[in-house]
Amino acid sequence: MHLFFQPDPKVFELDEEESRHCTKVLRLTSGDIIYVTDGKGRLQKCRLNIGRKNVTYEAVESSFIPKRSYNVHIAVAPTRKAERNEWMVEKMTEMGVDRIDFIVTEHTHRETVSRVVNMARLNRIAASAMKQSQQYYMPEIRLVTDFPSFIKECEDGTRLIAYVPDNHLTEHVIKKVKKHSNTILLIGPEGDFSPEEVILATTNGFEAVSLGATRLRTETAAVAGCHAINLAQLL
Amino acid sequence: MHLFFQPDPKVFELDEEESRHCTKVLRLTSGDIIYVTDGKGRLQKCRLNIGRKNVTYEAVESSFIPKRSYNVHIAVAPTRKAERNEWMVEKMTEMGVDRIDFIVTEHTHRETVSRVVNMARLNRIAASAMKQSQQYYMPEIRLVTDFPSFIKECEDGTRLIAYVPDNHLTEHVIKKVKKHSNTILLIGPEGDFSPEEVILATTNGFEAVSLGATRLRTETAAVAGCHAINLAQLL
Repeated sequence: MHLFFQPDPKVFELDEEESRHCTKVLRLTSGDIIYVTDGKGRLQKCRLNIGRKNVTYEAVESSFIPKRSYNVHIAVAPTRKAERNEWMVEKMTEMGVDRIDFIVTEHTHRETVSRVVNMARLNRIAASAMKQSQQYYMPEIRLVTDFPSFIKECEDGTRLIAYVPDNHLTEHVIKKVKKHSNTILLIGPEGDFSPEEVILATTNGFEAVSLGATRLRTETAAVAGCHAINLAQLL
Repeated sequence: MHLFFQPDPKVFELDEEESRHCTKVLRLTSGDIIYVTDGKGRLQKCRLNIGRKNVTYEAVESSFIPKRSYNVHIAVAPTRKAERNEWMVEKMTEMGVDRIDFIVTEHTHRETVSRVVNMARLNRIAASAMKQSQQYYMPEIRLVTDFPSFIKECEDGTRLIAYVPDNHLTEHVIKKVKKHSNTILLIGPEGDFSPEEVILATTNGFEAVSLGATRLRTETAAVAGCHAINLAQLL
């Protein structure tokens, strides 16, 4: 099944990158059948028409794949290396994530954020991971610069913050997730959240959880947390 | 806690890379306290002695950190991109893995294996991930070129193969893992295991398991499987 991404349902043409993949990599020709999703659950079976300048298609069949019964929302401080932020997005998208917020925290290296969080690139990576893992929903990716407002405006659902207080008595995230309901998990930067940020989160309904016995890098923590929230739905 | 790795307990000197990290990055000086592990559970508190040519240390205290009550053994077909094999090793080491075997299967691109599985480099990455996640055991990393013999010689414990047969009735790996006992999980290449390989494994005690609802890339499957085996211990 050759799956392509076209976010605009009114457009029946592949963008440059998708066209290249279609003709140069997959070597498809006019009349071949492809599948196109808008990243919002719509899946269309289409017939290709490869022109000189562009690759268009006409819809043969259209279906809608309903969303899962729960949302996974990961809010994570960006690492200082762009490629680690990129693979976080790729891996969480493969495993299943609805929203990824890169949050600028007190201990986040602000100077580098604009360089290491490139939205256009992150969205391309998410689109490719969505197609590769044969999903039909694109995660929403955002940059959050005002952490306090973000915490206060957080939507309903199970609100968790990956943070191990001195008493080390926090339970693992997998034991706190509720089935068929939304979960948001906060992951701090290297150097962790500041005490003020932890207090702000916990006084706004966020519960401290652990991510396991070993100390994980920020990007590993995000992927492990996202995976654990998905696994909790199976238990 | 500044943790360093010296596999030979008879040597009281840091290698070149560790020495550079100690003096140039951490800017430690003679008399400072460091911790040294041999990657086999031994943890020594040591006093630094920074010489002109080398960085040595004397042990002040020595302790032994017992192994976990279970082993995680992941046998995975290498991807065709070295960096994806490298991050598999890094992430599984952070999450906790005892043995990683890169297995050459029927659908593995043999020509590239020697290029994309660089043992020296993978062991450096594992050592750095072990220290970073403050663990004291190095995973054993190997290249397995004879898949049939490997399957027949597999040690005891829960033997699983990530493979979704046509009937799609396999349970998730997290439901098959037994607490406080060893688990080995086989992960196939792009293009999956060959039917013969699946039959060989299942007739030799390997049970087919799923890794979740979405289709994961090989390296993501390995990390997700390793994580699920560790999480199963908490349930």
